[in-house]
Amino acid sequence: MIIGTAAERLDAREKVTGAARYVSDLVVPEMLHAKVWRAPVPHARLLGVDGSRAARSPGVVAVCTATDLPVKRLHYGPAFKDQPILAHEIIRYAGEPVVAVVADTERHAAAALALIDVSYRELPAVTSAAEALAQGAPVLHPALDRSGHFRDLSGLRPVAGTNVCQHYHYDRGDVARAFAEADLTVEDVYHYPALSHHALEAHCAVARVDGDGLTVWTGTQHPFPVRKELAEVFDLPLAAVQVIVPLIGGAFGGKCYTKIEPLAAALAARVRRSALTITRHAVTVRLRTAVRSDGTLLARECDVVLDTGAYADIGPRVATKAGYRAPGPYRIPCLSIDARCVYTNNVPAGAYRGYGVPQVTWASESQMDQIAERLGLDPLAFREKNLLKRGEEYVAGDTPMDGDMADALAQTGAAIDWGRARERGRGVGLACAMKDGGGTHTVSTAAVRVNADGSVTLLTGSVEMGQGSRTALAQIAAETLGVPLSAIVVESPDTSITPYDHGTSASRSTTVMGLAVEAAARDARGQLLELAAKFFGTEPEKLAIHDGVVACGERTMTVGDVVSGHFGLVGGEVTGLGTFVPGTWSGSLGGATLFWEVGMGAAEVQVDADTGEISVEKYVSVADVGQAINARECAAQDEGAAMQAIGPALFESRVSEAGHLVNPGLIDYRVPTFADLPRELETVLIENRDGPGPFGSKGVGEGGTFCPAPAIANAVARATGVRIKDLPMTPERVWRALRDARGTRRG
Amino acid sequence: MIIGTAAERLDAREKVTGAARYVSDLVVPEMLHAKVWRAPVPHARLLGVDGSRAARSPGVVAVCTATDLPVKRLHYGPAFKDQPILAHEIIRYAGEPVVAVVADTERHAAAALALIDVSYRELPAVTSAAEALAQGAPVLHPALDRSGHFRDLSGLRPVAGTNVCQHYHYDRGDVARAFAEADLTVEDVYHYPALSHHALEAHCAVARVDGDGLTVWTGTQHPFPVRKELAEVFDLPLAAVQVIVPLIGGAFGGKCYTKIEPLAAALAARVRRSALTITRHAVTVRLRTAVRSDGTLLARECDVVLDTGAYADIGPRVATKAGYRAPGPYRIPCLSIDARCVYTNNVPAGAYRGYGVPQVTWASESQMDQIAERLGLDPLAFREKNLLKRGEEYVAGDTPMDGDMADALAQTGAAIDWGRARERGRGVGLACAMKDGGGTHTVSTAAVRVNADGSVTLLTGSVEMGQGSRTALAQIAAETLGVPLSAIVVESPDTSITPYDHGTSASRSTTVMGLAVEAAARDARGQLLELAAKFFGTEPEKLAIHDGVVACGERTMTVGDVVSGHFGLVGGEVTGLGTFVPGTWSGSLGGATLFWEVGMGAAEVQVDADTGEISVEKYVSVADVGQAINARECAAQDEGAAMQAIGPALFESRVSEAGHLVNPGLIDYRVPTFADLPRELETVLIENRDGPGPFGSKGVGEGGTFCPAPAIANAVARATGVRIKDLPMTPERVWRALRDARGTRRG
Repeated sequence: MIIGTAAERLDAREKVTGAARYVSDLVVPEMLHAKVWRAPVPHARLLGVDGSRAARSPGVVAVCTATDLPVKRLHYGPAFKDQPILAHEIIRYAGEPVVAVVADTERHAAAALALIDVSYRELPAVTSAAEALAQGAPVLHPALDRSGHFRDLSGLRPVAGTNVCQHYHYDRGDVARAFAEADLTVEDVYHYPALSHHALEAHCAVARVDGDGLTVWTGTQHPFPVRKELAEVFDLPLAAVQVIVPLIGGAFGGKCYTKIEPLAAALAARVRRSALTITRHAVTVRLRTAVRSDGTLLARECDVVLDTGAYADIGPRVATKAGYRAPGPYRIPCLSIDARCVYTNNVPAGAYRGYGVPQVTWASESQMDQIAERLGLDPLAFREKNLLKRGEEYVAGDTPMDGDMADALAQTGAAIDWGRARERGRGVGLACAMKDGGGTHTVSTAAVRVNADGSVTLLTGSVEMGQGSRTALAQIAAETLGVPLSAIVVESPDTSITPYDHGTSASRSTTVMGLAVEAAARDARGQLLELAAKFFGTEPEKLAIHDGVVACGERTMTVGDVVSGHFGLVGGEVTGLGTFVPGTWSGSLGGATLFWEVGMGAAEVQVDADTGEISVEKYVSVADVGQAINARECAAQDEGAAMQAIGPALFESRVSEAGHLVNPGLIDYRVPTFADLPRELETVLIENRDGPGPFGSKGVGEGGTFCPAPAIANAVARATGVRIKDLPMTPERVWRALRDARGTRRG
Repeated sequence: MIIGTAAERLDAREKVTGAARYVSDLVVPEMLHAKVWRAPVPHARLLGVDGSRAARSPGVVAVCTATDLPVKRLHYGPAFKDQPILAHEIIRYAGEPVVAVVADTERHAAAALALIDVSYRELPAVTSAAEALAQGAPVLHPALDRSGHFRDLSGLRPVAGTNVCQHYHYDRGDVARAFAEADLTVEDVYHYPALSHHALEAHCAVARVDGDGLTVWTGTQHPFPVRKELAEVFDLPLAAVQVIVPLIGGAFGGKCYTKIEPLAAALAARVRRSALTITRHAVTVRLRTAVRSDGTLLARECDVVLDTGAYADIGPRVATKAGYRAPGPYRIPCLSIDARCVYTNNVPAGAYRGYGVPQVTWASESQMDQIAERLGLDPLAFREKNLLKRGEEYVAGDTPMDGDMADALAQTGAAIDWGRARERGRGVGLACAMKDGGGTHTVSTAAVRVNADGSVTLLTGSVEMGQGSRTALAQIAAETLGVPLSAIVVESPDTSITPYDHGTSASRSTTVMGLAVEAAARDARGQLLELAAKFFGTEPEKLAIHDGVVACGERTMTVGDVVSGHFGLVGGEVTGLGTFVPGTWSGSLGGATLFWEVGMGAAEVQVDADTGEISVEKYVSVADVGQAINARECAAQDEGAAMQAIGPALFESRVSEAGHLVNPGLIDYRVPTFADLPRELETVLIENRDGPGPFGSKGVGEGGTFCPAPAIANAVARATGVRIKDLPMTPERVWRALRDARGTRRG
């Protein structure tokens, strides 16, 4: 059995030895380098660019503004075509690319940047979602042109004449009556800050334009959608655009859809882009919940506002999904949800691991504990009472709950030793959440080539960005074919030669591409058995393949012998193809989910009353993986997710003043390091083999990001009686809250 | 109709503008350069190599001999594993690579070569096939290890303890009796010189070794067999070896099978290799033919000896095929054939456009005219009487003649105005030949990917080396799918991602890969019609696709709309796969041929009796192409072949003295230029749509090389009465023959 084993990552050695190659390692003949002059103010009208001094600087080949780019369409974006490749007429955020310098070396390009003169007139800036929603706020994008990456373009609902580029609304039941009749109503506003992805590898793309068309090497999570965007920007057929993706050094959603590729292509040059590229949405969530005194949830109103920055990127879908997921994994008869995605003069925000769930879970799971406290209920028992059971519908038309959440919650409680009494200043807290996973209506195709020596080449468009997809997909292929894992080589995505795949996001690769790989391997296996049956003079059904050997009773033949026996010494190969296309589009909220990704977490904390410092003594993360294809990698994914989510829980956030980012680099912007880990970190994998993926697997990798912040906040509240509603829970913020609480009690 | 049109070559623009990229344009990170120290003598025992001074030379990274190479197996070769990557213990030809220097630049590597000290003891050299066959000749390879590129290893028949690495023998009928009863017996010995391929692009390979395995970029005609050879040399699985082939700047057989790739791979560096790499075999043919006085051929004895140089390369198969084809395209009841491939201390010889046919046709078609003259028959009528008719067997078990050779011969005669009287010193001559084409038992697979915008990506392992395969295969795909030719993009071979193909040789690509492409396109077309039928609410059989549009009566839909309509806005693609596997292996001579490639030619010459100079006034080349996929490219291929064959007819040969090549470079070695063209050059394409390839096509590209030399020699004989039996027919050789003839006549 290859599935479920802790097989060594296929790329472990090359990564550890430094042999792994990323886009920034690429050298192509006559390669030039580009650097970008970025806007120093968040909102301004461009009056003119004088690049003449820069153009005379050593090694400079070109100084380009928006009007110099040889493109058919200047604007791009996965939701709206609202983002210019270089700023045109208007600057909309501080850091926006305005002028590109192309030179023979990176150093020459950088040196020339200082010689560029840009004149502009500042405009009133809108630097938070609240300002953007205010009456009379400047409207950043008066007209919006929809793009083609939403299957259902009517799912895009901007509000004309405002900064709202997406307004998602959902309601069910008589919400007003439910609130009127409730024993208890709680209403709170929670804030989740903007974050930077800070993947180890920065954005980098290399582009080449020649008689064949356009070739772009880039670390994107969406090779095929990027190909589509580039084909549209340059008015080329899809077959003339080639997007090649080597290994990626981390992405977390920050490399979803098109980013710097059109600029690189337009300059046919090399571009590096800093962490200004894309961010996680700052989100404000207002929640109002109606409950009966026995703890039965009656109604919930959710108002979610996302600051999407100057350009929409995939923000409208993040908003929709954040809204959709805001009520939490509970049975709530009446719902009213509004989620608004709002333009501001901040850096554009887009996809980030969890896609809105961490932000709304911060709100909903905090409030769950507040309700329990008000009703005098145990927070675990209160959640257990309301959790959706297997088969129950979250929203009509969507896939019913496909896991046992009560069991997962019980395991979470057991792992943190929920009932045990804690000393003063210590507390435990928990949280649970779920996310419709796998992406909606996305297609994957895979090819499996069995070579004449029995080695196997697996072609997929899935991007290896550190999550281990190569290894998991190779395990699925090996198990299905009946060959050893060492026989499999997984090739990198290249849109011109690897089969189509929608992209690597939404915890989808193991499930969606996994099903395509499984189908391709099954196809190849069928062909191998047909061929082997001829050699054995029997029926394919009487044969078995195991460990690269086809057995017919006592007689055996290697897989390689079957292939070379059929094709002869000169060679040949058996090719299997598999495509996964999800079922019919349905439901009001964007199609039925492929599976529910369930993530739970529990924290035990110690709070220093004098400094406000929170020490996480233990964190337990629980992931329902259906069936771990590779248990070690699943646990590593979940641990990494929890560790990453501890950042915004305790100290991480993008700090801006008047539209200027104060902490752009990793000196000022802190991400979690090993020193910030909980003293004890434990991951529990739930394996009921009930997922829709190969061997009963489900997606994993985002669930661990959902719960750390609310679980820690709930633990802090239980340890100190103080409720924090804004992240991060820095010592200063906690200390002030403790001081205020003491003041209240004294007063 | 896209088939048969003179569509512009798909790579015309990039080649004309210089944008086309070859291996030598490739730059990979940290690339090093290698140069090779070559043996100065043809046969010697290596005593020692002192590379210490070279190793201290600027920029030098390594100085390697055979024992330094990190290989599992030092020897390689498509027939025998007889050729070392670097000479080991014995030097076997002057120019053999002995030491490789790897440095940071080509210049540094070249400079260090002069500092290498090699000590050796010279051995008696064997520098012609005649010497190699002589009693007591040194045996160059006392033991031979068969390789795996012959399907039937028993087809390899070396003669132990001699320099004969292949002895092909065939006989039928009572040859002795036929000669005894013949009205006329003629016996002659003909000589065809060794040639250099001199493709515009020299051999060059770039190799990279990393955690993934081995990647080699090389201009080989056999990407997949090279992958197999490298896998064996380095003991790697096939899936861990990646061979990538960009455009090739000419090959003519000189880039068949493995050449410098193992050295490049072993050095993980860049290597250029001069025209010493591989040559066309020098061949001596003794022919003895028995005829009745009415011109009926009764028997033929053929003794063919090929000088294959120090290592066999694919020489054994060239010898077998040369022997097989030596009798010519005639009905001859009794045959006795011996063909021997002989080791000498010359540069290894291998495949060269025509694969033995130009050499044996030089003999057999010269002798046909001599027989006609002796019998007082018209050479055309004499041939016509004996030519195989459609359906007649050449050799029992092989495919019967599949064309109308008598008709082709009549067209040849008509084009040269055969019957017309010529002035003194002028004459016409003709020749005809055929070759079993397409390669025996070779496999090709192709994939056709129809993108969501209707553009199409064609994946094949066929190598574009100037012959126009990309264009022809794209035309086949476009016609079969029903899309415009401009919708097709053809990708270059990459063994890790493009489907399996045996190689680009034997005029096979249009037929064998063409059938795979046609099958793949038909598969994709079927899927498109199935999908379209759902949209139209009808049956697939009621639909037609033309020019990228699917029509259902009056209603239409583009192919792109069908794909994107099925998969949705997010994308997807329809993939068709096609494999061509030839029928069962049969026959005594290496399997039934896929088709007979028929080439005929006629020349009108003027001979200057004072200088011996031959002026070719007109040359007519006739090619039976079945159906031209692209008539312009077929004619260009045939013209190029005829033009190339005029070289060895009139002036081209490798001149060696005591094992040392006297004319290695293009200053001393003349290849035909436009100045050497016949005053008039005409190509006639025979199109009866009777080939086994797509749309009735057959292979083309070698046939034009068969006949120029004998047709010119026959014309010279008819103009002057002088018969030349050795090539090239230089003015000196013709002048001497004329002088001798005058002497004879006078005396």
